[in-house]
Amino acid sequence: MPITANYPDRKTWIETFPNTDFPIQNIPFGVFLTRDDIITIGTRIGDTAIDLGALHQLGYFDGIPLTDDIFLQDSLNDFISDGKKTWRLVRNRIAEIFDAKNNSLKNNEKHRQEVLFSLDEIEMQLPVRIGDYTDFYSSIEHATNVGKMFRDPENALLPNWLHMPVGYHGRSSSIIPSGIPIHRPQGQKLTNGAKEPIFGPSRLVDFELEMAFITTDANQLGEPIPIEEAEDYIFGMVLFNDWSARDIQKWEYVPLGPFLGKNFASSISPWIVTLDALEPYRTDGPKPLKEQLPYLQYKGKKSFDINLEVAIQPEKAVETVVSKSNFKHMYWTMAQQLTHHTVNGCPVNSGDLMGSGTLSGPTPDSYGSMLELSWRGEKPLQLNEGGSRKFIDDNDTVIMRGYCEKDGVRIGFGEVSTKLLPVFKK
Amino acid sequence: MPITANYPDRKTWIETFPNTDFPIQNIPFGVFLTRDDIITIGTRIGDTAIDLGALHQLGYFDGIPLTDDIFLQDSLNDFISDGKKTWRLVRNRIAEIFDAKNNSLKNNEKHRQEVLFSLDEIEMQLPVRIGDYTDFYSSIEHATNVGKMFRDPENALLPNWLHMPVGYHGRSSSIIPSGIPIHRPQGQKLTNGAKEPIFGPSRLVDFELEMAFITTDANQLGEPIPIEEAEDYIFGMVLFNDWSARDIQKWEYVPLGPFLGKNFASSISPWIVTLDALEPYRTDGPKPLKEQLPYLQYKGKKSFDINLEVAIQPEKAVETVVSKSNFKHMYWTMAQQLTHHTVNGCPVNSGDLMGSGTLSGPTPDSYGSMLELSWRGEKPLQLNEGGSRKFIDDNDTVIMRGYCEKDGVRIGFGEVSTKLLPVFKK
Repeated sequence: MPITANYPDRKTWIETFPNTDFPIQNIPFGVFLTRDDIITIGTRIGDTAIDLGALHQLGYFDGIPLTDDIFLQDSLNDFISDGKKTWRLVRNRIAEIFDAKNNSLKNNEKHRQEVLFSLDEIEMQLPVRIGDYTDFYSSIEHATNVGKMFRDPENALLPNWLHMPVGYHGRSSSIIPSGIPIHRPQGQKLTNGAKEPIFGPSRLVDFELEMAFITTDANQLGEPIPIEEAEDYIFGMVLFNDWSARDIQKWEYVPLGPFLGKNFASSISPWIVTLDALEPYRTDGPKPLKEQLPYLQYKGKKSFDINLEVAIQPEKAVETVVSKSNFKHMYWTMAQQLTHHTVNGCPVNSGDLMGSGTLSGPTPDSYGSMLELSWRGEKPLQLNEGGSRKFIDDNDTVIMRGYCEKDGVRIGFGEVSTKLLPVFKK
Repeated sequence: MPITANYPDRKTWIETFPNTDFPIQNIPFGVFLTRDDIITIGTRIGDTAIDLGALHQLGYFDGIPLTDDIFLQDSLNDFISDGKKTWRLVRNRIAEIFDAKNNSLKNNEKHRQEVLFSLDEIEMQLPVRIGDYTDFYSSIEHATNVGKMFRDPENALLPNWLHMPVGYHGRSSSIIPSGIPIHRPQGQKLTNGAKEPIFGPSRLVDFELEMAFITTDANQLGEPIPIEEAEDYIFGMVLFNDWSARDIQKWEYVPLGPFLGKNFASSISPWIVTLDALEPYRTDGPKPLKEQLPYLQYKGKKSFDINLEVAIQPEKAVETVVSKSNFKHMYWTMAQQLTHHTVNGCPVNSGDLMGSGTLSGPTPDSYGSMLELSWRGEKPLQLNEGGSRKFIDDNDTVIMRGYCEKDGVRIGFGEVSTKLLPVFKK
C-alpha cells in the first residue's frame, strides 16, 4: 500500500507557518487533554491539534477497520497493536481530510469546532503506556569517548561492542513527557580520593541526547524476530533525553550497570513521528568495522538522516545550542537493535520504548552529553548569556530538537524540554 | 488494626491437609481463570480456590470500602492500590468467613457452589500487571561466590557492595507464572580461548533462587521514601526464578549489566503471600559488616525466616533437591532495597516487582544457582535418578518451594515450577 500521506506536493487547508516541524506530510500521533479536560488521541498539523477521537465519531474514518473507542483512550497502545497496515490507512486518510482540495471538514464549521484545537488549549500527555524500556549504547563515538575517560584510552571500546548492539534495561516509571520539571537527584557518591561514599545531591547532572523508537506487539515468549521483519514492528520515533547523574552512576554501576544514576527521569517529545513519515529520509548507516554475525546482517538503507540539537536555557535567559548531531551516526540500526533484543526469545509488546543511546557525532561540537562536551568538566562550555557550564545547573532547562529535510519537505519532532529543579523538599 | 487473620488457633470449615502451605492463616492473593473461563481475583485455603469476585457480589465484603468490580479484574493492581488498611480488612474478613465457627457461607450450598473451586478446575495467571521489575543482588554469599569465580578471589566483593543494595533493571515482559514452559535461549557467546563470538544455543542455562516483593503506589517523581515507611508499600512476596544463560551473560554484560542472558524468562509462584501473613516470622537480618549511611539505617526486625529449596526434575524421573537456603541470609532487607530505590526520586507503582537476587546461604549445599552449586561446572551434581547436572538440561523442570513455620502454623508459597524446552522452532 503506497504511503500517500507522504506526497511532497500536498498542501493543506490548515494554516501552517513555513518551516514548521508538522506539515501535512508529518501526521504524528500523540495523546492530549482537550479544553474540556477530555483525554484523546490526536495528531497535529502546523500549530493546530486535531482530535482523532472526535474525527472518528463523526465518521471520517469510515471504511477503515477501527473499534469505536480506538482514539478515545489515554494511550496509543491499542492503536499501535492494530499494526502497520492500519497505521498507514489512518495516516493516509488524515492527509486526505486535510488536503487543500478537500472541503468536507473544511466547510463544516460545527465539525471543525469539535475537532480542531489550538496548541494552548491542550495539554500533551505521555503518548504510550510504556511497558518495558530498553536503552542501547549504539553510538561508536559516545562509547569510545566514555571508554577513554573512564577505562583505557588505548582500548576504549570493549571487546563485545563491535559484535552486538549493547543495551540494558531502564525504568519505565520515570519516563515523562516534555514540559514536566524534574528534581536534582540525591544519592551515594565517592568523592575524589575518598574510600567511603557520602550521601548528598548529585553534582554532575547531565543530559544524554538520544532518540527512541516505540514498538508494536512483535513476538511470543521464545520467538526471535528476523532482521528483515524488524522494522514492521516499529511504530515511530521520539526525541529522548536520558537524564544522568554521573557521580551516582560512577559509584554504583559495577558490576550490574546504571541504576539510580539514570532512573530519576527520562523525558520524551510528546508526538510520535511514524516510521512511514520518515521513509523519505532513509540513509546508509556507518560501515561496519567488523563482520557482523548473520542474524544481524541486513540489506538496504536502515538508518535515517535526522538533524539533532541540544540547547541549555538558564532561568530567564537566552538559550545556547551546545550540540548539533545526527541520528545517522548511530552505528547499530534500530532493526539490528530489535532483532538482537529478541534473538533469545524476549517478548516485545505494544508501547515498549527503546532508546538509541547517546547520539554523539564525530566532532567535539556534536557530542551528545555534557560529560563529553565539557570532557568530564575539564572544558566548561560558554553560554550566550555570559555564564558557563560543566554540567546542568538548578533551574536550567534542557531542550532537544530534531528534524529531517529533503526536497522542500521538513519533518520534525518538535522538542523535548525539561527543567531541572533543585533537590525535592517535602 | 490487629491482623486477626493471623490468629494461630483459628480453624476453618474448609477441608485442609496437615502441613498445607495454605492454612486459614495464610490467605494469599492470586488471579485465576474459573471453570467457566471467567478471570477473577481469588485466594486459597488448603486445596480449595476461592473466587473473591463472586464472594464480593454476594455481599460478603459489605462494610469494607471496595469498588464493585475490584476483584473482577485480570490483575491485582487496583486492589493493591487500595492500600495496606484495605488489604488487612479484606484478609481479616476472609478469615472470619471461613472460620470453623461461622456458618453463613458454610451452610449456603448455592453460594458455596459459586465461590469455591478445586485446584484442577482453575488456571492460575500472572497475579499482577508488572510495570517495572528490578532485581537486587543482596546475598553476600552469592556476590562473593560470583566475584571469586569471575573477578578477583582476593577482592570478591566490589567496593560499593557493603554500602548499598546493588540492583539493576530487568525485563517485565518475560515474567511468567509457574507452569508455563520456556525455551533454551540462543545468543552470542565467546568460547574459551576464542577471540570472536559465535552464535548458538546457550549451553549454560541456570536458575537463580530468589524471592520477590510486590509494591503498591509509593511516591511521586522526585520523592524519596524514608526507611521507616518502606514496608507500608510492600503488598507481599512470591518465589522467583531468575532464569539465566551464563555464557550469553558473560560475553554481553560489560559495561552495562545483564541483558539477553536474563530477559528470556523469569518465573514466579502465582499466589502472593502478604507481608501481613509473614508478620509472625520476622527475624534479624545479618549484622552489617560496615556502618551504613543514615538513610539505610533501620530499627527492629526487617528480615523474614523463610525456608527455601530448589529441585530439578528430569523428564519422567524423580526430582532431586539440589539446594536448601533461607530468605533470612539476605544481607540487605526489602525495606532497605525500596528506600535505596527511591532515594533519587524514582517512582514506584502498584504492581512493580523487586527481586532479592540469588539467595545463597553460607554452606555449599545452600547456594542458589547451578553456577555456584557446581562451581562453574567443575563439580557436577548427582541426581537421584542416576544422571548428573552442571547446568540445566532440555526438558528438565526446575521447582522452587518456600515456607515459614512457627508455633504449629506453616505459611507457604506453594511452588514455582518451570520446564526448560529445547530451542524454539517455528
